[in-house]
Amino acid sequence: MPGERLNIAPLGGLGEIGLNCMTFGYGEDLVMVDCGLMFPEDYHLGVDVVIPRFDFVLENRSRLRGIVLTHGHEDHIGALPWLVPMLEQARIYGSPFTLALVENKLREHGLLERVRLERLEPDGRFQLGAFAFNCFPVSHSIVDGLALGLETPVGRLVHTGDFKLDDNPLSGLGTDLAAFKDFAGPQGARILLSDSTNVENEGYSMGEREVWGALRTAFRRAEGRVLVTLFSSNIQRIQEVFDCALETGRKVVVGGRSLINNIETARSLGYLNIPDGLHVELSSLPSDLPEQRVALLLTGSQGEPMSALTRIVRGDHKSLRIHPGDTVIMSSRLIPGNTSAVNRMINDLYRQGAEVLYSQVGGIHASGHAYKGELAAMFKAVRPEYFIPIHGEYRHLVKHAQLAVEHGLPQKRVFILSNGQTLSFGTKDVRPGPSVPAEAILVDGKGVGDVGQVVLKERQILGEEGMVIILFLLREKEKRAMGRPEVFSSGFVFDQQYSHVLEEAAELAQNLLEEEFPADTDKFQEKIRSTLRRLFRRVMGRDPLVVAIVRMV
Amino acid sequence: MPGERLNIAPLGGLGEIGLNCMTFGYGEDLVMVDCGLMFPEDYHLGVDVVIPRFDFVLENRSRLRGIVLTHGHEDHIGALPWLVPMLEQARIYGSPFTLALVENKLREHGLLERVRLERLEPDGRFQLGAFAFNCFPVSHSIVDGLALGLETPVGRLVHTGDFKLDDNPLSGLGTDLAAFKDFAGPQGARILLSDSTNVENEGYSMGEREVWGALRTAFRRAEGRVLVTLFSSNIQRIQEVFDCALETGRKVVVGGRSLINNIETARSLGYLNIPDGLHVELSSLPSDLPEQRVALLLTGSQGEPMSALTRIVRGDHKSLRIHPGDTVIMSSRLIPGNTSAVNRMINDLYRQGAEVLYSQVGGIHASGHAYKGELAAMFKAVRPEYFIPIHGEYRHLVKHAQLAVEHGLPQKRVFILSNGQTLSFGTKDVRPGPSVPAEAILVDGKGVGDVGQVVLKERQILGEEGMVIILFLLREKEKRAMGRPEVFSSGFVFDQQYSHVLEEAAELAQNLLEEEFPADTDKFQEKIRSTLRRLFRRVMGRDPLVVAIVRMV
Repeated sequence: MPGERLNIAPLGGLGEIGLNCMTFGYGEDLVMVDCGLMFPEDYHLGVDVVIPRFDFVLENRSRLRGIVLTHGHEDHIGALPWLVPMLEQARIYGSPFTLALVENKLREHGLLERVRLERLEPDGRFQLGAFAFNCFPVSHSIVDGLALGLETPVGRLVHTGDFKLDDNPLSGLGTDLAAFKDFAGPQGARILLSDSTNVENEGYSMGEREVWGALRTAFRRAEGRVLVTLFSSNIQRIQEVFDCALETGRKVVVGGRSLINNIETARSLGYLNIPDGLHVELSSLPSDLPEQRVALLLTGSQGEPMSALTRIVRGDHKSLRIHPGDTVIMSSRLIPGNTSAVNRMINDLYRQGAEVLYSQVGGIHASGHAYKGELAAMFKAVRPEYFIPIHGEYRHLVKHAQLAVEHGLPQKRVFILSNGQTLSFGTKDVRPGPSVPAEAILVDGKGVGDVGQVVLKERQILGEEGMVIILFLLREKEKRAMGRPEVFSSGFVFDQQYSHVLEEAAELAQNLLEEEFPADTDKFQEKIRSTLRRLFRRVMGRDPLVVAIVRMV
Repeated sequence: MPGERLNIAPLGGLGEIGLNCMTFGYGEDLVMVDCGLMFPEDYHLGVDVVIPRFDFVLENRSRLRGIVLTHGHEDHIGALPWLVPMLEQARIYGSPFTLALVENKLREHGLLERVRLERLEPDGRFQLGAFAFNCFPVSHSIVDGLALGLETPVGRLVHTGDFKLDDNPLSGLGTDLAAFKDFAGPQGARILLSDSTNVENEGYSMGEREVWGALRTAFRRAEGRVLVTLFSSNIQRIQEVFDCALETGRKVVVGGRSLINNIETARSLGYLNIPDGLHVELSSLPSDLPEQRVALLLTGSQGEPMSALTRIVRGDHKSLRIHPGDTVIMSSRLIPGNTSAVNRMINDLYRQGAEVLYSQVGGIHASGHAYKGELAAMFKAVRPEYFIPIHGEYRHLVKHAQLAVEHGLPQKRVFILSNGQTLSFGTKDVRPGPSVPAEAILVDGKGVGDVGQVVLKERQILGEEGMVIILFLLREKEKRAMGRPEVFSSGFVFDQQYSHVLEEAAELAQNLLEEEFPADTDKFQEKIRSTLRRLFRRVMGRDPLVVAIVRMV
């Protein structure tokens, strides 16, 4: 339609790794690409997950033609359980493995009947309103990843999804730059949105074939059992583990619910080829089977408390223990927030006589995100008129923008957007569009969005300093205390060592009463509170939350 | 004396990076080497520092001949303020810069008169009871680091302190392997204790000359101001920063108290050579001085909340802001627990238009700890009969032990000790000695050791879930409530969004009262508590600490 414009409005993923959620609007049509969550930072105390604010989509739900998913990682599909209930029969498009993960997730939340799942073929093409979507398979750390080529009334747009290049993929379809070049056409595409995660890494990421080689070497050298942890959605890597086990004559036992589920899903879709007899139950492992004939594939790559490996190391697992001589291979990235937990686990593994291989010490993991050289190659294949870096923190977006400029794009055609910041394209121009609501919403239990600055600050004080309650009941008529003040504390001091501090607090309150019987209980409460805080700071150097409760009875 | 044995008892530093504290005993003589603290882990909520348990030293204080310090890092001197008050006139031995840092620290704590500081020369030799100490200068990330060669009645012992090799040191005395070889003698030393920190890194660490080269390049390329953060005790690096500033015609302003203090200390000892006019106060910077003529040296390499750089980035600094075009060089190691804080700071720096260089992207920092190749070289120089890896987590000790075995030492002469585990050497044999008390003591404010498992667990619940107090006063005679129950919460829900949950909690308590007026307030409290916990789990999916206070009035 003349006068209509393409509006690109990100709701998440620009300024953080996670929360990926992009919207494309044209006239009466709105489509969403990806709907991901983010895991909380260490200062998000007690928070379970972080999701995007969906107001914009809800206000425009009559225009929403569909949700297209690039792949099945949590930071691309994880927020669906919160969005789906707010929509009528959302149509969700994705590749087979992506949809299988979505199906499992929505079934767990009892939401499967609220959606229509539309399966995409690797070379699929489908229309959503004004948008024609073209699917491009990409290499990533999960199977069935897609990039998207959108044909829009204002030109062609490429959204890379999460991708890397692998010129010698072990199997399946890798990223085919020629197909992107082809789609972009002889003049290049109008707009490119590209994955900024690893732009700070020079050169090219390691290929999966190299990882496989390193795994094979480790399996061959291990004189005892081999234990492998990895992300349970990394089907390609799981296949390599089974292959290495087969090659070294080992049976494979799988531990951890998400692993068992994903292997089942991948097998039923034909993505995992596991010869009969290779994957066995723990109970059917012959008791006289030499350790060298055993491999365990386990959850726990991030030291997650309830994962299989963590429970085994802790001694909590009902049937598995660490054996001296075990070789543990941690075949995944270590997400920075989990360093402490993983470190503790590695030291405990050594204490129990195991040897541990992790990515710093041997090439047993490769990133799923393109390094700078690969991003340059994608840029050159697509030859965009406009460039919007996505999927990164601010520093990644800045550096990806720099890369585009280094490759000849004028600065004014490179846009570093924030979530909620809209870009509006006409057939011949671009300008800012109306901004849309965007926010990182904290989910804690069943409460969505109430835990924010206020509650987090309260939790921070409680978590670092603890709290003290002082209860003081006063006889109004007789103008005296009803008994002594009572003091309770939690997380403040260890009673058995510092009970005198709490006694001193009670005495101080009594003294305040003896000075003058209060007319105003609120003022008296406040006086007790500040007196006790001064006491605790002076004696303990600590500043707990003090709750003074004074009541006239 | 015949029959006497050398007892080696570590009190800290074996099984953790930090807390370094070693003791050597022979007959009536006891010496301590290093007295360090450790910074808390992320699960040590609200804890300030961690120190070793000193019972063993205190029980043997009449035998303590002195405390010898290898160098001035906090993990080697930081626990002194807690030990010194418990001793009578402790004699503390250290090199000039080490003692200067100790002096500053003890003066701050008002403890300077409680010690006698004994200054060591780089080639010093001194007697402490049965032990003759020989000093060996070493390269480390702080000046004046020493290794120690002990002549004991059961043979010669080498304690490397923290060290690396640098075959082309920028200045001062580096690690001289020939001196160690000489001290060990033609048969080799009896015992070697060596720094295990970086044993997992193959080869050799980068030398300081390379770092200097990378810094020079960065200073030359920067078109605007240069801001450098680093550890304030890294005098060598500070000298390089001043040199680079001089070379590129920049004035240097220093921000951050510990930096200012350490520079002052180092200058007075002759360790820093700063030409007149190079180091200036901010106020005396000419306002028309081009940005390219300015360098700022700042605290904040770990994103510490009150550090100079963090406050500047936050906009809290009274006189300094980030300018677009600034180049920020983070010339230090990123300690894993600080990743979040530093990451946020880097993104904020980019948002404010700065460019950031940090160790992953350019050689602007080198480790102060020997890599595997250097550890092998030290091992071969000392040729010990017995080997005890120190200064590392369990995994580092294990790998350092493996290195010794790889170099021909029989496994039975390699000892992986824990804190508190004693090794006892006679002239011809070795065996376990009596174990001594050893523990990581948590210090929070002025309270030492009371914050342990119990208090930490309480803080964890409070910090993740928050708390709810319900106060219910009952008229004993009339057998009815005195008013409605009152509910307070902190860190639980955001009142304005979920106040109905707290109202429902009050109603539930009232219903329980109406069911039956309680005879036993304790039981009634417990009933209210469990009812409310069920409510909160059901409605919010959260599990705060619930304090139910029921009183008969």
